[in-house]
Amino acid sequence: MGPGPSPVSHRVLHAMSQSMVGHLDPQFIKLMDKVNDQLRSCFQSKNKMTFPISGPGTAGMEACFANLVEPGDKVLVCRNGVFGERMRHMVQRLGGEPIIVDAEWGKPIDPADVERELKKSVGVKVVAAVHAETSTGVMSDVGAICALSRRYDALTIVDCVTSLGGVPVDVDGWQCDAVYSGTQKCLSAPPGLSPVSFSTRAVEHVKNRRTKVVSWFYDIGLLSEYWSGETKRTYHHTAPISMIYALHEALTALLEEGLSKSWSRHRTISSKLISGLEGLGLDVLVEPASRLPQLTVVKVPDGVNDSEIRTRLLDEFDLEIGGGLGQFAGKAWRIGLMGHGCTLDNVDYCLSSLGDCLRSPDSSK
Amino acid sequence: MGPGPSPVSHRVLHAMSQSMVGHLDPQFIKLMDKVNDQLRSCFQSKNKMTFPISGPGTAGMEACFANLVEPGDKVLVCRNGVFGERMRHMVQRLGGEPIIVDAEWGKPIDPADVERELKKSVGVKVVAAVHAETSTGVMSDVGAICALSRRYDALTIVDCVTSLGGVPVDVDGWQCDAVYSGTQKCLSAPPGLSPVSFSTRAVEHVKNRRTKVVSWFYDIGLLSEYWSGETKRTYHHTAPISMIYALHEALTALLEEGLSKSWSRHRTISSKLISGLEGLGLDVLVEPASRLPQLTVVKVPDGVNDSEIRTRLLDEFDLEIGGGLGQFAGKAWRIGLMGHGCTLDNVDYCLSSLGDCLRSPDSSK
Repeated sequence: MGPGPSPVSHRVLHAMSQSMVGHLDPQFIKLMDKVNDQLRSCFQSKNKMTFPISGPGTAGMEACFANLVEPGDKVLVCRNGVFGERMRHMVQRLGGEPIIVDAEWGKPIDPADVERELKKSVGVKVVAAVHAETSTGVMSDVGAICALSRRYDALTIVDCVTSLGGVPVDVDGWQCDAVYSGTQKCLSAPPGLSPVSFSTRAVEHVKNRRTKVVSWFYDIGLLSEYWSGETKRTYHHTAPISMIYALHEALTALLEEGLSKSWSRHRTISSKLISGLEGLGLDVLVEPASRLPQLTVVKVPDGVNDSEIRTRLLDEFDLEIGGGLGQFAGKAWRIGLMGHGCTLDNVDYCLSSLGDCLRSPDSSK
Repeated sequence: MGPGPSPVSHRVLHAMSQSMVGHLDPQFIKLMDKVNDQLRSCFQSKNKMTFPISGPGTAGMEACFANLVEPGDKVLVCRNGVFGERMRHMVQRLGGEPIIVDAEWGKPIDPADVERELKKSVGVKVVAAVHAETSTGVMSDVGAICALSRRYDALTIVDCVTSLGGVPVDVDGWQCDAVYSGTQKCLSAPPGLSPVSFSTRAVEHVKNRRTKVVSWFYDIGLLSEYWSGETKRTYHHTAPISMIYALHEALTALLEEGLSKSWSRHRTISSKLISGLEGLGLDVLVEPASRLPQLTVVKVPDGVNDSEIRTRLLDEFDLEIGGGLGQFAGKAWRIGLMGHGCTLDNVDYCLSSLGDCLRSPDSSK
């Protein structure tokens, strides 16, 4: 019940452990196509360039920035947690010029601040924002940010690592140009793949770059010949076969349940967690309007030792919850209810275990 | 029996399908340390910075180049197949100046050619070579190339994707500065991770770069805080937990057998394959002195349709062998005997199936 990796069902683990096939085997290519279709459903997008990058969410983030950002490009980065700051680092390393729109940790990005900056900084090429900040449990209105960005003719990159499957992600509705996610959050597959989706506009933009994409591995022009070749597939790299088996099964389970049902399950069950945490006297850090149902962030109560409680939960109750990151290190707990892990049983178990730890002194002392 | 992914044992698949744990769970951190120790054994290296990159072999290749190459650097690239050519692309994209030492496809790199070029091109910063060219089945004397490079004060990058576990890889003996491998060849774990090892000299070089590593994800300065932190581990990305389970089990199996025994098993069993293929009238493309035991490359006989035979092997015999890549497309078959797949039974099955296909006309016609 941390901020991911979330629990993986036996069904997915079983699928993952099937025998190896070749990465250009006709059966595997069919599976690739099917996974891409499933991802299009989850992203609510018709984007042809929708596929899983062979690396974790951070690799997907880097793939989006490496393709869309060229040296000298102005990139507006919305920052309200660790992952916005990571975006800034990536932009700088790629030779882009980051322009920061900040929001306080624990608050969503204000689209009005984005618009103010877009008016002020003429010629912004790319706007990047995090849909679900895993470091703070905050959801920002990336739909509004994408709409604004289009008005100012900027491409958009949206981080949907923690959001996909848990809350509505509407890539085509948002008219977003590049999104990336992770498999280990609300999709409940093991970590190691990063589903991405690029709009036609983004693909055209990459084709017309002044400079080559600095990364051979992430260049979507090359990747498309393997992942979405019209006819013959060209070898690019060896896809992580077993991980694709797992992702396929996890997406099948999610789509069997249905996206809307999954979203409402996350809402309903997280509301029970929140009531229970408040019943234990804990303060939820994020205002209701921007709370992520799949990740609840609470303040560590005064006088309570963060790591001692988390160690006890792990050792005595076999339960992981997440500590704070960055500004929230030592000050917050991050409790995940993601995908397969989003169940009432888990809520009950977490509340009773955490309650025990908070009420009783450390039994080992 | 293609050029990888190689077959994965039930033991490894079973390990991979164990329950998820957190990527900062104390149990997982112990496992990371153990995997790194196992990789040091396989690479025959004491390098502290030895760990699996969270991506396939090509990601490991890019990690080595992105860390060691700065814009403007002269990089000598030894090219005798697809992967040398890929190295050249990466160097160019990173802003380096590639200097090519070619060898004919199917032949090893001649260290004398490397020395001639090192003498001529003053100020080469990095020399890169492929130990085992997966596109041609050729092994080059990277030990000699590394020794030369040190005399000319150049760092070395060696591709050991297909060699590790199948033939001796001696990172410290070679005094090599950066190596990368893959899990899906002679290690017989699923594809998706790239074991790498960086010498102290390489780590110092990266610390003293004029420019930041363009990739945040691959920067070994940041990666070291997660993969080999002395005390506290810092979150960098979510490691592919299940893949690490699999790699751990695969390395355990390899080290139980022993590296020398694995190397001699690959030699002995491939010699049976070669005799058998010659018995079928096929020409092995590579001279005995530079043949890779784990990957045998034979000419497609005149008048035989490459893809028809491979399709029949797959459809009628459930057997994959690899087609040619690049210059060898349509002209060569690549038959793998890698790791868990390197058995006498596989040799016999391959020879009888391939013999059937070559002798009898296509049954479907």
